[in-house]
Amino acid sequence: MMAGGRSLEKIAATCILTLCLACLHVTSLKSQLFTRVGGLRYTTEPPISYKTLYFDQKIDHFGFLQDGTFKQRYLVADKHWHQPDGPVLFYTGNEGDITWFCNNTGFMWEIAGQLGAMLVFAEHRYYGESLPFGQESYSDSKHLNYLTSEQALADFAVLIENLKSTVPGAQNSPVIAIGGSYGGMLSAWFRMKYPNVVVGALAASAPIWQFPDLVPCGDFYKIVTQDFAKSGNNCDKNIRRSWKAINNVSSSASGLQWLSEEFSLCSPLKNKNDAVTFKSWLQETWVNLAMVDYPYEANFLQPLPRWPIQVVCKYLGFDSTVSDHQLLHGVAQAAKVYYNYTGSSPCLNTSQTATSSLGALGWFFQACTEMVMPMCTDGVQDMFEPEEWNFQAFSDECNSIFGVRPRADWAGTVYGGKKIGSHSNIIFSNGGLDPWSAGGVTSNITQSLVSILIPDGAHHLDLRYSNNLDPPSVRFARALELKYFQKWIRQAQKSTGTGSTMSKKRKNSP
Amino acid sequence: MMAGGRSLEKIAATCILTLCLACLHVTSLKSQLFTRVGGLRYTTEPPISYKTLYFDQKIDHFGFLQDGTFKQRYLVADKHWHQPDGPVLFYTGNEGDITWFCNNTGFMWEIAGQLGAMLVFAEHRYYGESLPFGQESYSDSKHLNYLTSEQALADFAVLIENLKSTVPGAQNSPVIAIGGSYGGMLSAWFRMKYPNVVVGALAASAPIWQFPDLVPCGDFYKIVTQDFAKSGNNCDKNIRRSWKAINNVSSSASGLQWLSEEFSLCSPLKNKNDAVTFKSWLQETWVNLAMVDYPYEANFLQPLPRWPIQVVCKYLGFDSTVSDHQLLHGVAQAAKVYYNYTGSSPCLNTSQTATSSLGALGWFFQACTEMVMPMCTDGVQDMFEPEEWNFQAFSDECNSIFGVRPRADWAGTVYGGKKIGSHSNIIFSNGGLDPWSAGGVTSNITQSLVSILIPDGAHHLDLRYSNNLDPPSVRFARALELKYFQKWIRQAQKSTGTGSTMSKKRKNSP
Repeated sequence: MMAGGRSLEKIAATCILTLCLACLHVTSLKSQLFTRVGGLRYTTEPPISYKTLYFDQKIDHFGFLQDGTFKQRYLVADKHWHQPDGPVLFYTGNEGDITWFCNNTGFMWEIAGQLGAMLVFAEHRYYGESLPFGQESYSDSKHLNYLTSEQALADFAVLIENLKSTVPGAQNSPVIAIGGSYGGMLSAWFRMKYPNVVVGALAASAPIWQFPDLVPCGDFYKIVTQDFAKSGNNCDKNIRRSWKAINNVSSSASGLQWLSEEFSLCSPLKNKNDAVTFKSWLQETWVNLAMVDYPYEANFLQPLPRWPIQVVCKYLGFDSTVSDHQLLHGVAQAAKVYYNYTGSSPCLNTSQTATSSLGALGWFFQACTEMVMPMCTDGVQDMFEPEEWNFQAFSDECNSIFGVRPRADWAGTVYGGKKIGSHSNIIFSNGGLDPWSAGGVTSNITQSLVSILIPDGAHHLDLRYSNNLDPPSVRFARALELKYFQKWIRQAQKSTGTGSTMSKKRKNSP
Repeated sequence: MMAGGRSLEKIAATCILTLCLACLHVTSLKSQLFTRVGGLRYTTEPPISYKTLYFDQKIDHFGFLQDGTFKQRYLVADKHWHQPDGPVLFYTGNEGDITWFCNNTGFMWEIAGQLGAMLVFAEHRYYGESLPFGQESYSDSKHLNYLTSEQALADFAVLIENLKSTVPGAQNSPVIAIGGSYGGMLSAWFRMKYPNVVVGALAASAPIWQFPDLVPCGDFYKIVTQDFAKSGNNCDKNIRRSWKAINNVSSSASGLQWLSEEFSLCSPLKNKNDAVTFKSWLQETWVNLAMVDYPYEANFLQPLPRWPIQVVCKYLGFDSTVSDHQLLHGVAQAAKVYYNYTGSSPCLNTSQTATSSLGALGWFFQACTEMVMPMCTDGVQDMFEPEEWNFQAFSDECNSIFGVRPRADWAGTVYGGKKIGSHSNIIFSNGGLDPWSAGGVTSNITQSLVSILIPDGAHHLDLRYSNNLDPPSVRFARALELKYFQKWIRQAQKSTGTGSTMSKKRKNSP
């Protein structure tokens, strides 16, 4: 999941819904755009193999007039599956190509053997190949009307029920939902709404409370700021200063040219609007870095060194006497850590996105309907230019683009907001470095609605392949998650009277 | 809730959706039509008074293209409400005019004072006055598309959240869902899907398992038969014999005329088709009697004597030597107990219905979409003509009428089928005489998913006003239900740190 300031421009550059996006300027909306930047798996990770399958899914689960179906893609790996009755680990796909999530969720691959589990990765409707109306899916808001989290959860439920009734030996298989980011929200909600289908859920870095009136809108950017503050002397302070420096420098044509050259921009800045766009792009850059501040070299949103913010902050250690130009030279060097770590980028493209435009647009629509996630900055407790959360402006923007208006309270009503204590068997894991933890569940609610904190972890580090440089906290988190899985599986097998010798042998519970 | 064989003809006579209904002959479908026959409250019952209010409800909670609203009617009685934080008893309206349910749920009125509770009765969309598209609501399946139980539950959730945020003193009020029949199914499902909104639910006579593959399709009619078997010698046997007798007698024109006169039919039978219709009408009569076999004179579906089946069976005690004409003379007398107890009916109208056609048509649509409730008879374990459950025929019929097809597995997937053990705070009460108990939860699932059996009770007797002739079992049931309510209220007040002195005084828990 990714937040930042430049996503809408990216969409504008590539999206197939041809609407005027020039007026888009609501940072809070932009901030909610998750990213679907493709990532390459490191070659040291074990090779994975899966079958790609398609399921005929109803376009509309909640109405009967539209009775059409579409092909929902899902991936199955049953090499380790202990048949019959072995568990299923089910990835509740989020806003992107499911193969990317499959490749970036090494944790599932690493524990499949131990659990004797089948792995299933289900693609979220309207993303990747799972397009309800094919190439028309994004053509207008009529076709987008079935893009909701409720429909996605129903897809998952119907798919699992079908697998149970058609795959030999799967009838009594306990299913565990797993997801990260929006996929983690889905896995938590899936257990809440369909406890008949999944025996438990791991919701990794899932900001289920990043909705109106549940958490302070400024916490997200505060965490970003803290990440920079502790990664180098004056690092956050200099980023806070940089916005005014950009304003100063960009007030002249020569300043714009200097900035463009300093940042090696592919398209030089030409006017004040470009400078605003430029600042949004930079803001998103810092947010992204906070999300992927992993303890080892990795390629999630971009190829990056280990602890990338520390590397970035090496260029931002100035004291208060620094000039605007000096400061911005440092910022440019810092930005290039993110955008050109490999040294292969001839220039930085402020409208570049490695994501599929479809995915970005889909999430944009979701943010404009159900996924209303207030964000704000004050420039004091965070290092960004102050911007209040403005629901009305946000709503107007959504209406002008899609002809829909967001429903601020709906997510809280349908998914329970803070009143989720009657549910069970959900793990909420959160990384202390991850800004999305601001909207996450970071303390135990009940004995079976538990929080696992990974202080040194960025965005769903626990779902990634294990690594020699992993901090102990994430190793512990994964071990604990595995223990909960085993407990849920035992509970389920006890209630159905099934259970393999293998799983019965493991009696230690969390 | 009512089942029987004549409902479709009733609909055909009055419905505003002008489609060919001549081909309707699937008993199983007809059997699922609940009834909304108006009932007059006995004047001995205490007068009730409430405010009638309207709430602007979204037409579509699960999509954002249709952003229109409609006026949902709801009734509020707050005379006894203990403000602030006193509980709310919330009736989850079913398929009919909410004022009728309000008048027929005396239990809520009787315990309001004791609990210091506000009463709210919320009308189900597409029934009574709560029509999403006004008079157009039933004009075609496009307008009917928002008639689902999920939309209705969302209406209830949004309404309650709104009341909590707008009614002074209601913010922390624990809300308990109460409903009978389909309304009971809704109250159970409401607690399952929105435990953040209601702290518990009383699901009275709620056949939440009367769905495919959950209970035997023949159990419903078995219970009807048992009611007659134990209410008089040979009573069920003679009804079982009557179908063949009708076939014999109706094979001639003079026989048809004799039958018409014997039953004082308003419209004489003219041909074989009429005889089929006539048998369906009789079958529904026996089913209705089973539902309203109350221990006192009452007017629920019809004005009836106390223990009406015993009265009916007085006319059906023949031994096996009885002739067809003698037998059918007795059957006619029996039918008149149901249709003419007051002696004010000059003739019996086999196409008569006291319900609003709107309500019947709405339920018909629901049965044709989500509410797929298999029923069957074998003529051996029940007293009816054998008829298998035929999903395909049922689906074809729905398609020909509404252009929609039922989804056999959806209700089981979305509402959990038998796998509901992870939910909490639901009481399932069932009457031993009530055929709908066949699809009900009749044993405890967990400590907080409990079953209350009322052996002498017919259809949701516990929700009715108390009566001197009530059997001890229903008195006990109501007392236990009240104790659970008090327990849930205490639990909720404990968790919010509220609670009146009054409710704190009651420490005895179930």
